[in-house]
Order: sequence, then structure tokens, then C-alpha cells
Amino acid sequence: MRTTTGWQGTGIATTLQRGSIERRDPRPDDIVVRIDYCGVCHSDLHALNGMTGKPTEGLVPGHEFIGTVTAAGPDVTGFAVGDKVAVGTIVDSCSECAMCQVGQENFCYQGATVTYGGTDRVDGTVTKGGYSREYVLREKFAYRLPDGLDPAAAAPLMCAGITMWEPMRAKGIGPGSRVAVAGLGGLGHLGVKLAVALGAEVTVLSRTPDKSEDARKLGATGLIVTTDADQMKQAFGRFDLILDTISGPHDVPALLGLLTLDGTLSVLGYPWEFPLNVMNLIFGRKSISSSGTGGTRHTAELLTFCAEHNVTADIELLPSASVNEALTRLDQGDVRYRFVLDMSDLD
Amino acid sequence: MRTTTGWQGTGIATTLQRGSIERRDPRPDDIVVRIDYCGVCHSDLHALNGMTGKPTEGLVPGHEFIGTVTAAGPDVTGFAVGDKVAVGTIVDSCSECAMCQVGQENFCYQGATVTYGGTDRVDGTVTKGGYSREYVLREKFAYRLPDGLDPAAAAPLMCAGITMWEPMRAKGIGPGSRVAVAGLGGLGHLGVKLAVALGAEVTVLSRTPDKSEDARKLGATGLIVTTDADQMKQAFGRFDLILDTISGPHDVPALLGLLTLDGTLSVLGYPWEFPLNVMNLIFGRKSISSSGTGGTRHTAELLTFCAEHNVTADIELLPSASVNEALTRLDQGDVRYRFVLDMSDLD
Repeated sequence: MRTTTGWQGTGIATTLQRGSIERRDPRPDDIVVRIDYCGVCHSDLHALNGMTGKPTEGLVPGHEFIGTVTAAGPDVTGFAVGDKVAVGTIVDSCSECAMCQVGQENFCYQGATVTYGGTDRVDGTVTKGGYSREYVLREKFAYRLPDGLDPAAAAPLMCAGITMWEPMRAKGIGPGSRVAVAGLGGLGHLGVKLAVALGAEVTVLSRTPDKSEDARKLGATGLIVTTDADQMKQAFGRFDLILDTISGPHDVPALLGLLTLDGTLSVLGYPWEFPLNVMNLIFGRKSISSSGTGGTRHTAELLTFCAEHNVTADIELLPSASVNEALTRLDQGDVRYRFVLDMSDLD
Repeated sequence: MRTTTGWQGTGIATTLQRGSIERRDPRPDDIVVRIDYCGVCHSDLHALNGMTGKPTEGLVPGHEFIGTVTAAGPDVTGFAVGDKVAVGTIVDSCSECAMCQVGQENFCYQGATVTYGGTDRVDGTVTKGGYSREYVLREKFAYRLPDGLDPAAAAPLMCAGITMWEPMRAKGIGPGSRVAVAGLGGLGHLGVKLAVALGAEVTVLSRTPDKSEDARKLGATGLIVTTDADQMKQAFGRFDLILDTISGPHDVPALLGLLTLDGTLSVLGYPWEFPLNVMNLIFGRKSISSSGTGGTRHTAELLTFCAEHNVTADIELLPSASVNEALTRLDQGDVRYRFVLDMSDLD
């Protein structure tokens, strides 16, 4: 075993403490990554609040990070020491099921091994995340960071970014598409940027007009205030795809009226139950869908696309020692649009 | 005005009575159709039971029929006296909204004029359906019956058939696709035939194995008993599209487990509300959708396809005087697979 330093749960969601963390010695197909930057995802708060049903004490969150390869097992072929790599929410999967075979390890039928709070498939230990200085993982689940992408601002691509990317690619979004993004947070602002880069006409949906200027700066053509009946009526039947990133309880089916023929409402921030009336789907042959993070195929594609189109997150970079401030402000919705922790203070 | 003879509601769903029915004189773009055969749809029972919230007394059901043109207004260009025509669930629409412009009049934003129980857009009268000897409608909503299609067996294509066809075309079903059909009734048996003709591998989902032999005769490769946990487990993650034609209350989300990546559960027989848990959609990026009947574009396409592939409904042909027997047996589920009324006894 080897040890590194990281930030661990204490049982209080916004009070992590610095401590020593054990990592495995690299297996033949493992790389060792010095973590340079790690994004702070809303899921981290969910996990620290115990909403995943797992212990929060000792939990090390963090599943979108950029780092540098410092060692590699003898069977590693894709990376060498010094390479910049990106790691997301998944660090292993069964590799055999239909989903893994098509590069959708996020839907692995055996259950993917998640980057933190998961169970390692070889030694059965609980995985610990990227709020730390070092990570050890199979090379298959690391991605080369393309040249030209700022490493800190690229970190959120690995969870927030890919969560927006997969449903857009599945729907074939491109020039001529009309995409709406509900909620302008960590996910939503990347949804806008990616949809714009894909050539779509993009609109933000928000309860208030406060973010209109921000929406335009991100490349959206406008913002629709969802509490304004006139604006909602104007937007009736307009969108091919709505990316609903709102994480709190809200009236999901109310957004269906904004879809055009064969339009899809992709519910990405709200993994709960709501009543669905089929009549709201019939007229226009509409769909409700969902998705979560991404597999190796789409993740590699996303990084290449972002390098070509110069897309990264708008971030607030903090030293990792400010992790509790970041979590507290995230909990209050006080972030535009993603906190990223600089891990160099852990040396 | 002109008069014809038909079968009208009395307030008791399965007790229609023969009577005289008024039809308008043809407008310039109208055709007059002598109805030869009219299918008996489950919606007719719903309407006669008052489930549409409209009066059932005097209601003339029937929205899938085949007939012969007997007169045409001066502006009619597509039909001549003697032509065989097919008519479905819609006899007019606004013609101006985005849905009408793309031939999806079934989703007309102003509300399509339905074949019975609708409101005529010109004179405001209530439309009366195909359980009658004559109908008058805009030529736009009549379709030439292709040569070679048996007119009685073709009648159910105009509601049951098109309701199956549209979601399959929207999903691009063809060779290599795996389609499941839940419920083997009027809709379902045509769903099987059409999916097979499109080149898909087709499976029937049913609560009991009773219909296995029938499923195979229709071209399905097999039947999965949905109450058999082992069979359901075997079929996990298998289908690109499930056409759920079950009209009674049932556990709709339970079928989601059978979908593969980007698979769609199209709920076509059950226009009610149920609780939807987003978690059941996330893994596999699955969708729930719905649809209802069809617009002019797909309906014309369907008739051409059915003529080329020799697809019609399996019907039980009865004289129209047996309409009450047909409705009673339909209500009991005692039909394989569609009753069609021969209207010649109304002369």
C-alpha cells in the first residue's frame, strides 16, 4: 500500500478534514496519477449528506479530476510518466456486458465501479475519490488530456460535461437543432456551451430573468422565464431537446409543453419519482428520458471535441484547503459555475 | 343536407340502435364516400362508455373505414367517383400549424377534427363516424386504397395499424431492430405484423403463455410471459422498442427493464397517469414515449407499405346489424383480432 493526503468526510457534509489516505500499489494495468485539479460536483454534497445510503465518515469525494501520470504498471500501453490525464466518475466495470462492449460502461450491467464510494473489483476495498493528491486506477478509465485545454477548467468536463454530452449525442444534436437547458449551474452552463459548439440554437430556462445576461455570454440566444405564462406559451412546441439539470423538486412534466415533434425531455439533475400523465407525451410523440455521466467512447469523443472547440467550464479555482467553503457555497447555490480545487497545497 | 343510415349510441355502451343520420352536402373540396367496411376500435367502447366526457346518446362511432367515392365537389382533384378510399381517425385540421405543415395532423396544435365526436371546422356540427353507410369529408383526409389490399381487412390499418406504424417509423425500426409488443389485441397483432414486415425481430409480451402459438403465426419469434420472473430476467436489456398496447391498468415502468441502450417504451393503449422513477430511465439512457394514430404523411406511407408487404388485419367480419354483439365481445376481450362491420346491410 501507499499513502497520500486528502480530504475526508466527518459526518457533517460541509466539514471535511485533511488526513492520510491509503492507495493500492499499482497493478500491472494501473497508472498512478498525481491529482492537480479536482472539480466539486453536486453529487459530492449528496454523498456527504448520506443520500447514497453509504457511510459519510471517511468518505473522500471527487470524481472529475485532472492529473499527471507518476508511475505505470508493466502492462500499461497508453500512458507514460509525465502524461496529463483526465479521470471521471468511473474507474472500472465488468468489461463483458453489452454496455461495456459498446463503451457505455456508465450503464454496466454488473454495476460500474465508481470513483469514490464504490467497491474495487479486485480487492473489495471502498474507492476513495479525487479530493486527494494521488489516485491509482486502470489505464482504461483514464483519458489523455488534449493539448490546449486548461487543466483546471477541463476537470468539470469529466462529470458535468459528459452528463450533458451523452444525451445530446444520442439525440443527434447539431446545426438546426433547438436545445433548451433548464437550470444554469455546473451542468447547465456546460450544456449551453456544448450545445452552442455543436451548432444548435440554445435557450436557457430559468425561474427568474436574473441569468439572462449570463446565458447570452455563454452563447445562448435567450432565456425563458418558466414562471412567466406568456413566455412559456410563446415557447410552446419549440425544442428538440430539453436538458433538465435542476436538482431540486420541480414540475418536470410542465416542461413537456415546450417540446416539438419527437422532442425529448432529458431529466439529468433530478433522480426521483414524479407522476407522469401519458397524455402529455401523446401529442407530438414526445419522450422523457434520462442518463448519467458517460462511458469511455463518449468521454474520449467529448475531450477531443472540447479541445477542437475550446470548451471548458467557467470555474472558481480554490486551494484544496478551501474545500469546506466550496461545499458550503455550493450548497447555497453560490457558484458560477463550478468550484475546482487546486490540490498542490496537499504536498 | 343529406341523410344516410347508421348505428347510434343509446346511453348503454353495447346497445346501439339503427337510425337515420344527417350528413352535410359536399363542399367544393369534399368527397362523398359510401362506407363498405368499418372496423370496431376499443376507443369506440371508451367513447360509448362516456370516457371522453361527451354525450353518448346519438353518438355514431367508427374511425377506420374503407369505402367507395360516390360524389365529389368541384375542387376535388385526387379522387373520382368509383375510387376505393380509406379513412381514419382525422377528417380535418387547421392546416397551418407546424404539425399540420409536416403532415402530422394528428398532433395539430389547434386540435384535429376527429372522425366522430369532433366539431366540424366550418359549420360547427358534431362529427358522426363510420358505423354508417355514408360519410362526407375533405379529400385531403381520404387515402386511395392500394390495389391488392382486401378492403375489409384493410379498414383496421387506419387506426390500429397507423398507431403501431408511427412510433416504429419515428424510431427507425428495420432489419436488426428488436421490437416487443405488449398485448396481442387489435393494435398488438398489427404491431407484430408491421414490425416483422419492416424486418425486425419481434417478441410478444403477455401475462400468460396462451398466445404463444398465435404470436408465432403472426411472425413473432416468441412470447415472453411477463409474470414469469425467469423469463423477464432472461429478456433484460433486449429490446430497442416496446409497443405497449395494453389498455387496462398495468405496471408500465416494469417493462423498462427489457429495454436496451437508448431503447424506448411507447405507451399506446393506456392514456393515464402513473408514477415514473427517473432511476428506471438513467441506466441505458431509456425513454418513455407515446403517440396516437397518425398524420397524412405516415398514413399514406403505411398504406403503400402494407400493399407491398401484403399486411392487413386478421379480422372477424360481421354484418353491421351485429354491431352490439361485436361491442359486447370486444368488451370481454373475445376477438382475434379486430371486428369489422360490413355496412352493405344498411342499404
